[in-house]
Amino acid sequence: MSKEITSREKDYSQWYIDLVLKGELADYSAVKGCMVIKPYGYALWENMRDVLDKMFKETGHQNAYFPLFVPKSLFEAEEKNAEGFAKECAVVTHYRLKSDPENKSKLIVDPEAKLEEELVVRPTSEAIIWNTYKGWIQSYRDLPILVNQWANVVRWEMRTRLFLRTAEFLWQEGHTAHATKEEALEETKKMLEVYAHFAEEYMAMPVIKGVKSANERFAGAEDTYCIEALMQDGKALQAGTSHFLGQNFAKAFDVKFADKQNKLDYVWATSWGVSTRLIGALVMAHSDDDGLILPPKIAPIQVVIVPVYKGEESKPVIDERAGSIVRDLKAKGVSVKYDNDDNSRPGWKFAQYELQGIPVRIALGLRDIENNQAEVARRDTKEKNTVSLDNITEYITTLLGDIQVAMYEKAKQYRDSHITEVNTWDDFVSVLEGKGGFVSAHWDGTSETEELIKTKTKATIRCIPLNNKQEEGKCILTGNVSKERVLFARAY
Amino acid sequence: MSKEITSREKDYSQWYIDLVLKGELADYSAVKGCMVIKPYGYALWENMRDVLDKMFKETGHQNAYFPLFVPKSLFEAEEKNAEGFAKECAVVTHYRLKSDPENKSKLIVDPEAKLEEELVVRPTSEAIIWNTYKGWIQSYRDLPILVNQWANVVRWEMRTRLFLRTAEFLWQEGHTAHATKEEALEETKKMLEVYAHFAEEYMAMPVIKGVKSANERFAGAEDTYCIEALMQDGKALQAGTSHFLGQNFAKAFDVKFADKQNKLDYVWATSWGVSTRLIGALVMAHSDDDGLILPPKIAPIQVVIVPVYKGEESKPVIDERAGSIVRDLKAKGVSVKYDNDDNSRPGWKFAQYELQGIPVRIALGLRDIENNQAEVARRDTKEKNTVSLDNITEYITTLLGDIQVAMYEKAKQYRDSHITEVNTWDDFVSVLEGKGGFVSAHWDGTSETEELIKTKTKATIRCIPLNNKQEEGKCILTGNVSKERVLFARAY
Repeated sequence: MSKEITSREKDYSQWYIDLVLKGELADYSAVKGCMVIKPYGYALWENMRDVLDKMFKETGHQNAYFPLFVPKSLFEAEEKNAEGFAKECAVVTHYRLKSDPENKSKLIVDPEAKLEEELVVRPTSEAIIWNTYKGWIQSYRDLPILVNQWANVVRWEMRTRLFLRTAEFLWQEGHTAHATKEEALEETKKMLEVYAHFAEEYMAMPVIKGVKSANERFAGAEDTYCIEALMQDGKALQAGTSHFLGQNFAKAFDVKFADKQNKLDYVWATSWGVSTRLIGALVMAHSDDDGLILPPKIAPIQVVIVPVYKGEESKPVIDERAGSIVRDLKAKGVSVKYDNDDNSRPGWKFAQYELQGIPVRIALGLRDIENNQAEVARRDTKEKNTVSLDNITEYITTLLGDIQVAMYEKAKQYRDSHITEVNTWDDFVSVLEGKGGFVSAHWDGTSETEELIKTKTKATIRCIPLNNKQEEGKCILTGNVSKERVLFARAY
Repeated sequence: MSKEITSREKDYSQWYIDLVLKGELADYSAVKGCMVIKPYGYALWENMRDVLDKMFKETGHQNAYFPLFVPKSLFEAEEKNAEGFAKECAVVTHYRLKSDPENKSKLIVDPEAKLEEELVVRPTSEAIIWNTYKGWIQSYRDLPILVNQWANVVRWEMRTRLFLRTAEFLWQEGHTAHATKEEALEETKKMLEVYAHFAEEYMAMPVIKGVKSANERFAGAEDTYCIEALMQDGKALQAGTSHFLGQNFAKAFDVKFADKQNKLDYVWATSWGVSTRLIGALVMAHSDDDGLILPPKIAPIQVVIVPVYKGEESKPVIDERAGSIVRDLKAKGVSVKYDNDDNSRPGWKFAQYELQGIPVRIALGLRDIENNQAEVARRDTKEKNTVSLDNITEYITTLLGDIQVAMYEKAKQYRDSHITEVNTWDDFVSVLEGKGGFVSAHWDGTSETEELIKTKTKATIRCIPLNNKQEEGKCILTGNVSKERVLFARAY
């Protein structure tokens, strides 16, 4: 095999990059920190997007589209948000190029085409959207506004990694406006539930729902709710966030509404998002040293059929039988590919589809057809079975469901066995250094202590789980009083 | 009505703007030349996108995603393309903001965060894509590449108009790579047919398929194929383009492939795109002085049901009957809205839904239910009929089909009656000044003459129709020999 994958044991980071590049999900580009999402990776994103979009619409949201650019004066209006993103903003300063007078075939920025006001390429859209909402909201009748947008955003990161951290990425960002604090809080939590449901049911990736500490909160939010997943190297990954923004943006952009008593008040806000980062999480949550393992519910191709020809005369026989299996599976809503490309051998195809994580592979030869059977291999466990062609459609549809469940159970078992309660600093450090995963420990509730723990161990508070057990204890670092445990981890 | 629409007669441009703003398709934004696409307008775009996307996939294409930014050195590689777009490029020069030392609550561009090489915000993606294809193509086995992307692009226009010409717009751009010239040409024409089919079958908008003259060709193309539509003011609108790029980009980015005989040659290319501009075309092709008229096949809401209450006790009766009509229609795949909002009166709702172009309106009162009937109004002709509730589902589904056909026929009749053959300069000018529409006239084939005609009349050659009749004649302006007529028009 030319497409060798580095093992997790040998170099986990390189294993991840190998999977993304050789699994044909994405590619590097000529632009520092920006990636090309290849057709196979984009098909995966489309499936994830379509499921999420349906969930958003079922919960009453509509899509819209707001400008890519944010004028600097709007961007800086909500100070905390602006401060949080200022260091990673791509800025448009000119609107024209012209021929280089010293080299006619080259272009230079036309100094006479300088913008009066610089434009920030959106790192997030609260500013441009709340400036727009000001024109849309007069009274309680205009509320709630439940809007989402699918868009690209840019955050100029110095250290990037395909999908996990790129300068440009694709995401959705919901931005809602409400008449009351209670309704906004309810929306924040509702969308967290949507994200958790999506992660667990579709990505087969268990998540912990919680709320962020002040240090890890979204810049401009009153509270950030999150779902946290665990990767196979024991590091956590924030998979989605839902922010209760209070009245911060309404105040920054002077967005007031008249209630039923005609009393004016600022509007309450939420925002929530997930991004192509989820693809990175998906890769790291499930895959193995032979390649990707994708959950059937979002895999671009759920089943691949590989013919094993023996002489030219076997081709029409196998092609015909395979064609009927393809039709039957498609009729059941299964996405299936028949790969009868003559240029590669079955063994090469088997390896390639394993690498690309296609959940089920069917191999079909002349002898198989004579015996009215086929060899069916599942990607997750690599188990192979000989299956009668009489009921292969039912077998496959059941198998796809089984794989989805098994992937979730396996990931959950790993995650659950990697939440470790510790009560001493030594144990805290030793779990982080050794076993990894989430460490459940007492913390005195101060930002200073959290910061100090991060400096000493690179671990951060991933979240304070929802419905957390209240339990008296002593802070793992300072020994000060604590009323509950929180989850620490090193994180992506 | 507070939402009064300027009549076409009085001010056609203002009529268009009124429809877009008051029909809630889009809104102005704080960024010069950029629009906000509102939920109703975006739902329309989603429907158009979904139909097109399906057509692209059925013709063998896959979606992918390439970076928003193009390094200047790549952008300038294909000289004609670069020259064509240089004057309208938004340019990112810096990657960080910082606090203004003179006013801590403000931000300034950090002069120390200047990019080594400026980044152009993509006005079109040939450069970044062909630079990527270089890494993907070695031999004929890697061809064809049939890729499309849905994306935002930026062209810094000085004079903008909602949907028709905006600094940022949404579009799809197909970029394909082929081993032979013939195959690339075939692809170019195939996608033109896809666009024409979409415009006529879904947008109910007749189009003329043709090829552009050199003056109107896409910068960097060997040939630009186009579909041209006619608006109600007699101006033409280019609704989609499909470019045969020859080997221009392959040469600029040194993309060669080895054929079966292992001989190296440059790869052949096409690109093709349609954009949110189509929404502007749709508005102007069909609407009237009362508002939008949307074709059923892409309307966000196909049917609206408005209850006409008479006293509180009529509400549950009407709501229940309407609910069953909604269920029956939805079961037939019809998108339907039941508007029982108490805050507005039926008359206001009728006007609002007329303004928003919903194809069919059903009004339902207590007396109607007693008589087992409802009043059904079609938006395009404003015709109203009393329909038995027994077969209202079949009536509506048939009616939606009828409206789709009628809208196309009406637009086609208008278009066909606005193609005028002229043989003298005086007639040419007088048709342009008076009746408008396409003018079919002889032209001597030179760019100079075309330019001169444009200067004198503001008319350009919209296209040389496909399968154009060959006919000897004399150029309308110069009297020089011509071998065929071409279509001139003033255009958007």
